[in-house]
Amino acid sequence: MNLHTREHADGSASLGKAETIASDTPASERIAIVGGGLAGSMLTLALAQKGYAVDLYERQPDPRTQGGRAGRSINLGLSKRGMQALEMVGLLQTVLDTAVVMSGRVIHAPDGSTRYQPYGKDASEVLHSIDRNQLGHLLLDHAERHPQVRLHFGHRLAQVDKAARTVEFETAQGRVVAHPQWMVGADGAFSSARRELQRGERANYHQEYLEWGYKELTLAPGADGQSVIELTALHVWPRSHCLFVSHPNRDGSHTLTLFLPFEGEDSFATVRTPEEITALISKYFPDLVRLLPGLIEEWMKHPVGSLITTRTAPWTFGDWAVLVGDACHAVYPFYGQGMNSAFEDCCTLVSALSANQGDTAAAFHAYEQARRQHTDVLCELSKENFVELRKKVQSPWFVARKRLDIALNRLWPKRWLPLYSMIAHTTMPYGEARARARQQDAILLGSAKALAAVAVCGVAAAAWWWLR
Amino acid sequence: MNLHTREHADGSASLGKAETIASDTPASERIAIVGGGLAGSMLTLALAQKGYAVDLYERQPDPRTQGGRAGRSINLGLSKRGMQALEMVGLLQTVLDTAVVMSGRVIHAPDGSTRYQPYGKDASEVLHSIDRNQLGHLLLDHAERHPQVRLHFGHRLAQVDKAARTVEFETAQGRVVAHPQWMVGADGAFSSARRELQRGERANYHQEYLEWGYKELTLAPGADGQSVIELTALHVWPRSHCLFVSHPNRDGSHTLTLFLPFEGEDSFATVRTPEEITALISKYFPDLVRLLPGLIEEWMKHPVGSLITTRTAPWTFGDWAVLVGDACHAVYPFYGQGMNSAFEDCCTLVSALSANQGDTAAAFHAYEQARRQHTDVLCELSKENFVELRKKVQSPWFVARKRLDIALNRLWPKRWLPLYSMIAHTTMPYGEARARARQQDAILLGSAKALAAVAVCGVAAAAWWWLR
Repeated sequence: MNLHTREHADGSASLGKAETIASDTPASERIAIVGGGLAGSMLTLALAQKGYAVDLYERQPDPRTQGGRAGRSINLGLSKRGMQALEMVGLLQTVLDTAVVMSGRVIHAPDGSTRYQPYGKDASEVLHSIDRNQLGHLLLDHAERHPQVRLHFGHRLAQVDKAARTVEFETAQGRVVAHPQWMVGADGAFSSARRELQRGERANYHQEYLEWGYKELTLAPGADGQSVIELTALHVWPRSHCLFVSHPNRDGSHTLTLFLPFEGEDSFATVRTPEEITALISKYFPDLVRLLPGLIEEWMKHPVGSLITTRTAPWTFGDWAVLVGDACHAVYPFYGQGMNSAFEDCCTLVSALSANQGDTAAAFHAYEQARRQHTDVLCELSKENFVELRKKVQSPWFVARKRLDIALNRLWPKRWLPLYSMIAHTTMPYGEARARARQQDAILLGSAKALAAVAVCGVAAAAWWWLR
Repeated sequence: MNLHTREHADGSASLGKAETIASDTPASERIAIVGGGLAGSMLTLALAQKGYAVDLYERQPDPRTQGGRAGRSINLGLSKRGMQALEMVGLLQTVLDTAVVMSGRVIHAPDGSTRYQPYGKDASEVLHSIDRNQLGHLLLDHAERHPQVRLHFGHRLAQVDKAARTVEFETAQGRVVAHPQWMVGADGAFSSARRELQRGERANYHQEYLEWGYKELTLAPGADGQSVIELTALHVWPRSHCLFVSHPNRDGSHTLTLFLPFEGEDSFATVRTPEEITALISKYFPDLVRLLPGLIEEWMKHPVGSLITTRTAPWTFGDWAVLVGDACHAVYPFYGQGMNSAFEDCCTLVSALSANQGDTAAAFHAYEQARRQHTDVLCELSKENFVELRKKVQSPWFVARKRLDIALNRLWPKRWLPLYSMIAHTTMPYGEARARARQQDAILLGSAKALAAVAVCGVAAAAWWWLR
């Protein structure tokens, strides 16, 4: 049976039928996906729809049965690359129905004044604020309903034997060994799959933590149930020493994320008591204090998160294994591309498998060639955007440049694209987007110089005429 | 009992006395050193001489009982920083007595011609070729004879519990738990101590493999027992596609190291049969073919080594643990500073402990502050020197620049120091050495521009005079 050429299976098949079909596929022709986060469950669904029989293994218990907001609850900005993947699995409209549009950023200055920066040239170029957990549950629901899929929770990856092509898991009932046709590591920044697969390889690996952590807080709706700040926007309170970012929710609340250094003056190390917390918020965000009545309680309850960026190579291991998402390129969240790029990995991998039917090694190789150079660029862009969000968004030069970029983009929609638009609103590879943005920068600089020269000549001519 | 202020213990104490004294020290006041390579055994000896009671744990069996050339056998170029550490433990002269002086590099061109580049301005600025294993055995012998030291071979680090301050080892007889006062990770580039100590920390880590591997061969002495090439030099056969480097031995032989890409045309992947091996050497090193009668046999017997460079942070963990040597900064061997920098770590750590008696955390912190920024620079310098060794040493510009550097150094021995001299012949921190070299580069460039301007003016003046 050639799994690669199977017909698209209908995701809405009944559970009974699902079990029958799934157990039809010999274990050695099934695909093992390690990690049931967003990338893993997206890829499970996408591969199943392409005719593969997929086993999804997740270390944690089923998040849908955990109640409350299990896992990381940070909201996400869905943009073009992520939408493309949701489109592929037929879930885009379902997700958009639960999302809040963010048409731009509202920048809050220390004096309480605000300024709006649109995300694109028109209403088609917006982001969508979605709840990470809700999206995860939706993908798992649809994967579970697919007849070609089996979900295995409480399975912790213990060992991969590349030569024997086995994957071993620890479960509450003891060790389980799978013999899949091939496997995918989709188990996040601290990927055990990567560790196991890269053992004995000349693997490059870079990991770096941001010296800032984050804490999540909630900006509740007003007594009238309406959002107390503009709903359909991402809000930023940029300060050089700390930073608040908020994503809107459909109930009128906003999920606030405070980014603050771990060490030093005004840091997570020094701000611990209720007095210190209130003092910090009053000092940097006076307009927010009265809007956060539950500040102290939430601060005490929520952990401080840390932020890691990683790069690695190789991502692929012959015809036996491949890495996707954070497992091969975790990025800082400041470009809003973590989930979007992980979902784009899934699209690229599925395309590569279709284009190289019957030659899995070639498909994996093509995937890594197409992707890695670009996610390496995304790592850098995401680092740089931390500085942009904290400092540059307040600079008049930066604001003027943003406006000029958007004006030029409206004038020549296909020939002039701001970097942010290329990253968020197209699927142009990240590296190409950066190269094109640099060309545009050079053109602007050249034009500015030419304008300056013309101005100097004009002044000289005027002076000559006047003196004459 | 304050270990920090004990008298210097005499390394030559009898074994009986040693055991008595060693068992005097309570376990909780002993120091655990993980890794019995060069850095670990150097530090064991140095700390014991400062009055500490030290347990050295090594995963492998005692190398001195293994016979033959166990472990990595690559020769090493001992320079100033390493000599300083050997001086500290009183072994410098013993080591120099077994070494061969290398006063410079002999560059072998493809046509068989040679060119000599001195390592420094005079006979005091030379390297010493030493046998890695012989040095390791010497350090272990002296450590073992020290009454304050216990050596534990066949002890593989299994786990470190930072909170409980315990170190757990696997041995052939089962698990052993140590409760030292503090511990040192000196277990090399693939350090298990680093892995255990950085668990749960926001640790940065970078590892990168060179796309080239290496293989060791021997250039035997001639029938008369004399070296067939200049003995007291390091020899380099630079080719852009591959590279031979040789270190002399006291018996007139040279240890040759061939660096070659892993993949592609003329690589370790394609050169496998006796014919392919002979063809490779004939193509790139025609002058070496007749000198290597045992080529095929050695090639088949010796494994292909790989080369890794790593950077990480933190190196220190409160008052409980510290990393030294390759465990925190493995470098490519192309600047000849791997062992030298590891030994310099030992000197810096011992100094920091002396300067912060009674405050181990402060000592560790001072050590990391003094060292890490500089070994990060060494990583970069070692990478850059790979290009220098392969390509630049043949360039007339490079040779002219080297000569000018040495001439200026002879003219102003204290004010003008070539980068190589600062790295190899001084203990100036690596970062300072690089900054000073960059200043000198800027001065040379400025002078060249000024000279060019003077020349242009001269030509113009001459032309004016002539035309007049």
